[in-house]
Amino acid sequence: MQSADIKPLLVQNSSKIVLLILDGLGGIPMKPGGHTSLEAANTPNMDQLAQNGSLGSIVPIRPGITPGSGPAHLSLFGYDPIEHAVGRGVLEAKGIGIEVRPGDVAARGNFCTLDQDGNITDRRAGRISSDEGERLVKKLEGIKMDGLEITVRHLKEYRFALVLRGAALNAGIADTDPQVTGRAPLEPKANEPAAVKTALLFKKWISEAEKILSEEKDGNGVTLRGFGSDPQLDNYKDLYGLNAACIAVYPMYKGVAKLVGMDVIEFEGDSPADEFGALKNVWDDYDYFFVHIKKTDSMGEDGDFDGKVGVIESVDQAIHALTELNPDVLMITGDHSTPAKMKSHSWHPVPFLLWAPERGLPDTQDKFGERNCAAGGLGRFPAYEIPALALAHAGRLRKYGA
Amino acid sequence: MQSADIKPLLVQNSSKIVLLILDGLGGIPMKPGGHTSLEAANTPNMDQLAQNGSLGSIVPIRPGITPGSGPAHLSLFGYDPIEHAVGRGVLEAKGIGIEVRPGDVAARGNFCTLDQDGNITDRRAGRISSDEGERLVKKLEGIKMDGLEITVRHLKEYRFALVLRGAALNAGIADTDPQVTGRAPLEPKANEPAAVKTALLFKKWISEAEKILSEEKDGNGVTLRGFGSDPQLDNYKDLYGLNAACIAVYPMYKGVAKLVGMDVIEFEGDSPADEFGALKNVWDDYDYFFVHIKKTDSMGEDGDFDGKVGVIESVDQAIHALTELNPDVLMITGDHSTPAKMKSHSWHPVPFLLWAPERGLPDTQDKFGERNCAAGGLGRFPAYEIPALALAHAGRLRKYGA
Repeated sequence: MQSADIKPLLVQNSSKIVLLILDGLGGIPMKPGGHTSLEAANTPNMDQLAQNGSLGSIVPIRPGITPGSGPAHLSLFGYDPIEHAVGRGVLEAKGIGIEVRPGDVAARGNFCTLDQDGNITDRRAGRISSDEGERLVKKLEGIKMDGLEITVRHLKEYRFALVLRGAALNAGIADTDPQVTGRAPLEPKANEPAAVKTALLFKKWISEAEKILSEEKDGNGVTLRGFGSDPQLDNYKDLYGLNAACIAVYPMYKGVAKLVGMDVIEFEGDSPADEFGALKNVWDDYDYFFVHIKKTDSMGEDGDFDGKVGVIESVDQAIHALTELNPDVLMITGDHSTPAKMKSHSWHPVPFLLWAPERGLPDTQDKFGERNCAAGGLGRFPAYEIPALALAHAGRLRKYGA
Repeated sequence: MQSADIKPLLVQNSSKIVLLILDGLGGIPMKPGGHTSLEAANTPNMDQLAQNGSLGSIVPIRPGITPGSGPAHLSLFGYDPIEHAVGRGVLEAKGIGIEVRPGDVAARGNFCTLDQDGNITDRRAGRISSDEGERLVKKLEGIKMDGLEITVRHLKEYRFALVLRGAALNAGIADTDPQVTGRAPLEPKANEPAAVKTALLFKKWISEAEKILSEEKDGNGVTLRGFGSDPQLDNYKDLYGLNAACIAVYPMYKGVAKLVGMDVIEFEGDSPADEFGALKNVWDDYDYFFVHIKKTDSMGEDGDFDGKVGVIESVDQAIHALTELNPDVLMITGDHSTPAKMKSHSWHPVPFLLWAPERGLPDTQDKFGERNCAAGGLGRFPAYEIPALALAHAGRLRKYGA
């Protein structure tokens, strides 16, 4: 069931649910006959949970479809991402703390470097530092346009978020990054008639930005992508009766959590132990905890098989901090697969572990890994079925019909 | 995902995809504890592919629903066959090379033998030879009707295709074969008001045909079935960005391939080796190859368990001709199951093998068979998800969302 259908069945209790996401967890072997990173990792604690729990594989979008991070997380939160499209701009903007009201249009921006002819020589502006990126964004704050409220905020390195507020804006606009060097950035192009006016406003903003940046060596141009509006999703409390907390390091994941009404917990540090410590601090205040570990994905994207193994092992070594809290339901999975061999997100189903000591039906698997999960007792299922599964195992759903 | 939703994600590359269909591949044991034909067959080459690839089971229509060949193939090509109904008449007509324009109504015809009271004594006219069938069809070509363009073409033995072209025709007409002997053929009956006029036209044609055939000993009557119009499906190039070739011996399978815009390759012979040789000849000209082996199904329909084993083994012995071409994705499956024990199509999920050396996640199975496939890493999934899976493993889909 998708989220909206569960509501009539909700009951309240004091149970605790933890969804631990290792971003890009799934993988494939580097060569025939080999292990995946998760299989190669030494994970005695997660294997113990697997032995006492149940395994399965989740499909983030549809079989064969490689997810972006936004749709993948919406699915984990109970929304079929094909029916609920959310632009990355909104997630990044919300994540960094910009208010995105209904009707606002948000986009993710990249600084890039242009040659004399206006063609891109570096799509990431020589990977400028965060300090440098922050300095450039400060300059862009000077752009004013009639009838528009403009918010621009630095994210990290060469990345920023941009939000326009004004009358009759529409987010149906195509990305301007041509995805290759040697070409000029594309003009913002409306995908639908209703977005023509908004596309022209973004075009004007870009031209103002390029004027202001023209003297810069790295970062004299910008590209925009992931145009989007607030999808006005119901929040976790209404949907599931859950007070939900988000514990994440990266803005985008905080953004998608905010979209469904989770409280974003602030904390110091960025290790799994830091994140689990932050969770412990607010354990009594919430029913549901979304914990996001980024670096499994980063290692996969870098093609660093062993690095990914290391991150997984570091999570395993810290995970006692979660199990000691005695959650009613602990789920460990990823938002999608990021095989080091492919150096990119992929469509492969994602290993899923459910540990629910009171109400679970343990299967015959005893190790957390892709092939064990493919043979696991929970089978293969769409990621958007996770909330119903979690609520059920937490004793929070009454029966359907008499 | 069904075919229509994939389009925005397509990227082009030079990869090659092969879909090898062993018609009616799936089966059940002849007695408790026994093997299926596929399990009993000695298939070292396909077992090797299973070991290095991934297995699963496909559901052609819905669980428990036994497919006809037309809907089963539409599903393999990415269309949910419940949403896209195509009459067998269209497939047979297209397959034999009759042009079926939008608005034309096509039907499959059978010669039958009638007694003096007009009741059927043989539904297949004593299984007359193809020469004899051809002679009878020649006689039917003489039927003319005002305002109608009529095409009738011999298919094989007692079977023919009939297409009417005229104003405001409608294919909502029920089969006229009563499915038993001792009764007269049914009259063409409209399933909906819009088809009443067309039903009367077919009734008139049948009565003309029976006049012309009245002196025949075998084949003095006809039945019509599978009334249908061109469903105007998008073609493979538009849907998937694939130049697609069909390599098949029987007209119906060429017909369904033409419906989705595949080029039908002409070649001599009808053995698996002949078909694989034909594929090799056009290897450089296409991206996607649909190869159809008929005789697995024929043996199943005949209740010939060992015969089916033999056909499967003959495919296995020839399959090196495919693997030597180094396809990026090789899929081996059936359109449906045809257990020899049942002597008919069945609803049982169909064994599915995916070999994609670069991007696959091999599972723990090492033999191609029904029970191995049921435990395979790809799980059980609707056949219409095959194209997305194939495109993904061929590197032809970008990610969904950012």
